Amino acid sequence: MASSFLPLLRPSLSLCFRALRSSQCARRKLFQRTFYASTEKQALLPQLGSQGQSPATKEVQLDKPPKSILIVNKLRTQPVVLAIDALLEYVHEHYPDVRVFHEDRKDIPHGAEVWKSEQIDLVVTLGGDGTILHASSLFSAGEVPPVLSFSMGTLGFLLPFHIDDYAKALDSVFTGKATILNRMRLACTFYDTDLKEKEAGNDWQVMNEIALHRGGSPHLNTIDIFVDGQHLTEAVSDGLIVSTPTGSTAYSLSAGGPIVHPSLSALVLTPICPRSLSFRPLVFPSTSIVTLRIGDRSRAPGGVSMDGRTSHVLHPGELVTVQASPYPVPCINRSSIIDSAVAAEMQHREGAGPGKEDDWVRDINNLLQYNATFRSKALLRHSRTS
Amino acid sequence: MASSFLPLLRPSLSLCFRALRSSQCARRKLFQRTFYASTEKQALLPQLGSQGQSPATKEVQLDKPPKSILIVNKLRTQPVVLAIDALLEYVHEHYPDVRVFHEDRKDIPHGAEVWKSEQIDLVVTLGGDGTILHASSLFSAGEVPPVLSFSMGTLGFLLPFHIDDYAKALDSVFTGKATILNRMRLACTFYDTDLKEKEAGNDWQVMNEIALHRGGSPHLNTIDIFVDGQHLTEAVSDGLIVSTPTGSTAYSLSAGGPIVHPSLSALVLTPICPRSLSFRPLVFPSTSIVTLRIGDRSRAPGGVSMDGRTSHVLHPGELVTVQASPYPVPCINRSSIIDSAVAAEMQHREGAGPGKEDDWVRDINNLLQYNATFRSKALLRHSRTS
Amino acid sequence: MASSFLPLLRPSLSLCFRALRSSQCARRKLFQRTFYASTEKQALLPQLGSQGQSPATKEVQLDKPPKSILIVNKLRTQPVVLAIDALLEYVHEHYPDVRVFHEDRKDIPHGAEVWKSEQIDLVVTLGGDGTILHASSLFSAGEVPPVLSFSMGTLGFLLPFHIDDYAKALDSVFTGKATILNRMRLACTFYDTDLKEKEAGNDWQVMNEIALHRGGSPHLNTIDIFVDGQHLTEAVSDGLIVSTPTGSTAYSLSAGGPIVHPSLSALVLTPICPRSLSFRPLVFPSTSIVTLRIGDRSRAPGGVSMDGRTSHVLHPGELVTVQASPYPVPCINRSSIIDSAVAAEMQHREGAGPGKEDDWVRDINNLLQYNATFRSKALLRHSRTS
Amino acid sequence: MASSFLPLLRPSLSLCFRALRSSQCARRKLFQRTFYASTEKQALLPQLGSQGQSPATKEVQLDKPPKSILIVNKLRTQPVVLAIDALLEYVHEHYPDVRVFHEDRKDIPHGAEVWKSEQIDLVVTLGGDGTILHASSLFSAGEVPPVLSFSMGTLGFLLPFHIDDYAKALDSVFTGKATILNRMRLACTFYDTDLKEKEAGNDWQVMNEIALHRGGSPHLNTIDIFVDGQHLTEAVSDGLIVSTPTGSTAYSLSAGGPIVHPSLSALVLTPICPRSLSFRPLVFPSTSIVTLRIGDRSRAPGGVSMDGRTSHVLHPGELVTVQASPYPVPCINRSSIIDSAVAAEMQHREGAGPGKEDDWVRDINNLLQYNATFRSKALLRHSRTS
Repeated sequence: MASSFLPLLRPSLSLCFRALRSSQCARRKLFQRTFYASTEKQALLPQLGSQGQSPATKEVQLDKPPKSILIVNKLRTQPVVLAIDALLEYVHEHYPDVRVFHEDRKDIPHGAEVWKSEQIDLVVTLGGDGTILHASSLFSAGEVPPVLSFSMGTLGFLLPFHIDDYAKALDSVFTGKATILNRMRLACTFYDTDLKEKEAGNDWQVMNEIALHRGGSPHLNTIDIFVDGQHLTEAVSDGLIVSTPTGSTAYSLSAGGPIVHPSLSALVLTPICPRSLSFRPLVFPSTSIVTLRIGDRSRAPGGVSMDGRTSHVLHPGELVTVQASPYPVPCINRSSIIDSAVAAEMQHREGAGPGKEDDWVRDINNLLQYNATFRSKALLRHSRTS
Repeated sequence: MASSFLPLLRPSLSLCFRALRSSQCARRKLFQRTFYASTEKQALLPQLGSQGQSPATKEVQLDKPPKSILIVNKLRTQPVVLAIDALLEYVHEHYPDVRVFHEDRKDIPHGAEVWKSEQIDLVVTLGGDGTILHASSLFSAGEVPPVLSFSMGTLGFLLPFHIDDYAKALDSVFTGKATILNRMRLACTFYDTDLKEKEAGNDWQVMNEIALHRGGSPHLNTIDIFVDGQHLTEAVSDGLIVSTPTGSTAYSLSAGGPIVHPSLSALVLTPICPRSLSFRPLVFPSTSIVTLRIGDRSRAPGGVSMDGRTSHVLHPGELVTVQASPYPVPCINRSSIIDSAVAAEMQHREGAGPGKEDDWVRDINNLLQYNATFRSKALLRHSRTS
Repeated sequence: MASSFLPLLRPSLSLCFRALRSSQCARRKLFQRTFYASTEKQALLPQLGSQGQSPATKEVQLDKPPKSILIVNKLRTQPVVLAIDALLEYVHEHYPDVRVFHEDRKDIPHGAEVWKSEQIDLVVTLGGDGTILHASSLFSAGEVPPVLSFSMGTLGFLLPFHIDDYAKALDSVFTGKATILNRMRLACTFYDTDLKEKEAGNDWQVMNEIALHRGGSPHLNTIDIFVDGQHLTEAVSDGLIVSTPTGSTAYSLSAGGPIVHPSLSALVLTPICPRSLSFRPLVFPSTSIVTLRIGDRSRAPGGVSMDGRTSHVLHPGELVTVQASPYPVPCINRSSIIDSAVAAEMQHREGAGPGKEDDWVRDINNLLQYNATFRSKALLRHSRTS
Repeated sequence: MASSFLPLLRPSLSLCFRALRSSQCARRKLFQRTFYASTEKQALLPQLGSQGQSPATKEVQLDKPPKSILIVNKLRTQPVVLAIDALLEYVHEHYPDVRVFHEDRKDIPHGAEVWKSEQIDLVVTLGGDGTILHASSLFSAGEVPPVLSFSMGTLGFLLPFHIDDYAKALDSVFTGKATILNRMRLACTFYDTDLKEKEAGNDWQVMNEIALHRGGSPHLNTIDIFVDGQHLTEAVSDGLIVSTPTGSTAYSLSAGGPIVHPSLSALVLTPICPRSLSFRPLVFPSTSIVTLRIGDRSRAPGGVSMDGRTSHVLHPGELVTVQASPYPVPCINRSSIIDSAVAAEMQHREGAGPGKEDDWVRDINNLLQYNATFRSKALLRHSRTS
């Protein structure tokens, strides 16, 4: 099996011998060469240096230790309760000046205050990708504090920390070692047939996708799609999805969309069961404004679902505009807490900040089981019949 | 049928009445509103202003009139011959100081010189997308002069001018009105199993895609994919395609890839008949370096095809690195020659330069027939049986 | 362009010269050879002779002239009204003993009686595929009379006659020349969580498909699929479609299903936006019984849509069984009225009755525009910009 | 987790209590009801009783004990060698009159004779699906003896026995308990441009698929497709696949084709990277004859691959006809050796012979991991970073 991580630059020979079998060392050498070649080329393409990686998505470091934490969880199972208790205890003991908040629910954890819109410096989520989406929705009107997310044993696309690493993860945040990946969100604005905003001055920020869907209607809906105000097509389908790169591995993927690296600033437009066989998923620059307007002749309204939550219904002639939001979700990288030796090595890598692509590229293979061919040994179930 | 162009900003009322039916005027008003709303938001997201639209892809204007022209054509049919003659005559008459070159072939047009690597300021192509790819390949080692492309009656994805517009198009170039869209290319470098470049210092620039394919071999090939030096997966398939956004409507589309707007800087990785059902097309930022290495255990070599032309064969252990090229292809926009009235109107549009997205968004619907549902009236063939 | 019809056997030379250019004649000869070869093989495979083509789907002839006609139309536009009038006049004049019925609606045509469940010998539909589906639904409890369908100018997948051919078509029915294709239907039976039939003794016959869908619910539904009582999988998705071959070109096709020839007896199971990337469309023999049961843990009910009409809602634990119906829809073939010369020629063809496959194979290319490559000349829109 | 097997008919209550938890018993009752309902319906559809399940594919029992065995293996690894030795010893000891043959290779096993076309009553394969394909190819000219296939630890789509069951499996064959599934093959005949058979009287029988492919050519090939002698379309693509239901889970699946149950008699036509987005996989009755003819204008020949082995090259104007072969591959069912108690229970099931659908329906979920959603817990890799 090939190594899943190949540093690009200047690995010390000792490290090479220590960590890798000789064949891998050779391969590393290969990539070293490859890298040098490409470095020279990079000199020729300074203008390409940061393209496709906007300020909104590049990694940055937190500038100061948080003074307030909001804990977000959806489930209240025993493992989650225990994890919150342990985490609270750790914070109170090691960072006694920090206030810890929780949403106003019956089951507010002991040691946490009810959150009444106090300034939050750090969000901690415990649960799956859905919990992170929920945290994002708590700040759907504007800026989101950095999010430190813990999984309770499952691995999601949003690259959470394992809950067992909570101490290490918190320390990395408080000591300023944590880096963040700004995950793009979409700003959605709804208009009625009189062309008035449905909720004046109120955008909706979504992290995964906005979907228009015919819902329970027996009829396909007809949606006019405009890109930057220009008519692209009239889509007859079950619905349409506009997703972020983060959301490209969610609903859009089920509907046949491509997988888009989260550091690319792009909008993905994916049709749901389109009547036209030619209507393939499209990827636009994040500078584009996509407008979806329920056709005047549409026999079905468009039910609106944002990050999996049903909200509006759009009737014929009503529309929604979708564009990159100014308020991304700053997610703390799992690589923030990797061993210092590995980190040192990785910092020599060019381009990528410490570990960002690592997390995604490594996990995507895992999550999608690219290597699981449909005749794979891995899929063997014992076939003895006795 | 909805109008295919809706200006976003400040259309004069007179224009509105003159050019559009009232319902469209209303809709225009709608987009005006939409635009204002989004403008305010733009103020909040200055950092997003140019994201995803690198210097390599944004529109720029030519700075000075060309002094030398290279005419490129693949076919030598009667319409092409006549078109070249007319074009040459027009150039000699209106721009007498300009030298016109042609590739060294038997059928060099009267009035053109054989091109022996003289400096070229403008390339003129006559033919389909394939002719533009050929022109690109003539400059595969470095910078490409601006390309003015004419179709002979078919409309391609590379948005050529209609040949009947040759005078208007040439004038727009010589008078400095022409704008260009830099179409990203890919730089491909080949390495042997000793990790040496196969052709020292020699990159290949491709405009559409590079494809690795098992070719005539009965066996699937096994390719290790690395992204920025990190192992993504081991792909067992007929082959892999790495395409530019420009190439996303070519081979990659046939293999199931998404359609990517040419102003986005991105790499598209599309598998060809992968054994794993989970292996979906991926989109990476153009800052990524994708490395494809024929697996040591691969039973098939990888035949290499670049822009549809077979070149190398990669054996197990050999590899190719693919990244954004420093040498895009500057393509002159068809909108360079639109009516001044329309142009004036369009210049008020925000973001998009005059006509860039127009060309693509308008044509993509045409070319892919999004609106052709599979029970469409448009598909009616007379079904009378007598 | 290749000829769209190549007879397989013994075309007379004179016919060959009369009807075809010599190159086509050569090709015909080719197929003649091909056929002979395969005929010999047929002798070796008598057991394969009728496989896959059950009595329910093979072509048969009507045995006696109809004594009662039911006219079915959904729209009441001017062309439809005029067509019904002409048709009624023709029937009354040429077949005066025949009673003509119409559904009890306000707009019952002059000369027709209100249908109160009298025995019907022939159904005549005027409209698109949807009108034929509606006619099928009028007989959803049992046997369907032969259906003679006319399109009003559009060509559907259900292969209707052109309205201008109404006289010729009616004559072919009354003179016993018409042949029919029995289009398979699905019998759907619903059960509640107490395992009782929801409507005792009441099956639903559908011609295209039954779809279970999460409808307006924000949650994916979970459906256990059983084939012949055996668990196939637990599907997490937007929904599932079970379609007939006839329905394979409708909703199932939009969801990614294959196109199945209507003379094959098969069930097509197509997932709608499944969460699992491995869940591909499946095709089962029509002897299979497919059971769809909303999972106990499903967070969404399954809205049921049959031939595009919403009917039931299935809650967790409820189920529907789907199997081939004993009551197909006998559709009169368009080839029933082809010229006698052509018919004579076609009758020499082996296997296929006169014209059945013709209709489908010929039309499918048309309807799906297989030949429309996405760079096709056919898609050209004039691209002049002035 | 739902039970993967639900008998349809008359389970004794004692069995119900013995083997299943009460909830499953209830569900069984459900299916019992379901079945009764459908039984009554079956009375109405006698003509549908065996449709889609031709003699060629239905299960039959072996009529007499084999007198000669051919052992087929591709690999000669230690486990395979040991397994052959054990198997040979078992045969010699328990069935001393049986002659055992092996292909004439250097490594012929001790105790086996070199096969020189002696009559073979039973083929025993050791290896994966590829070994079964190889065994099929040894009898490509005509009838195939029953095939008893053993996997060496992997589970394939062709439903082999586990090697550890060799004694039980052989006994079931010799005692007449084994049942077989006749897996359809395709008969392929090649013609040159003079319309003469390329190999007179020589068909090729394939078990999975025949594929035409452009191979190493840079150009797409153009193939005219005829169904029963009638032109379907002109396909511009990388190639075309015609597969059996057995082959529908092989190359055709990678190219986007549906999964077809092996007891359905059908041909699957799947395009490989077609230029037209409308060209979807098609399923035809097995009575159809599909003809693929390299177009006269095709710029690429069609390399022919049959069951993964390269054979012919077809030049422009040459063609191949593909149809159901009279010589299927009789595969011994794994369910032949299930416990008698389970078998007794299963024999009450209607329609399905003992275990046929079981094998396939049970395994398909396994092999394709339908249930592995792309955020599944099953895919969890430990994500701790320390």
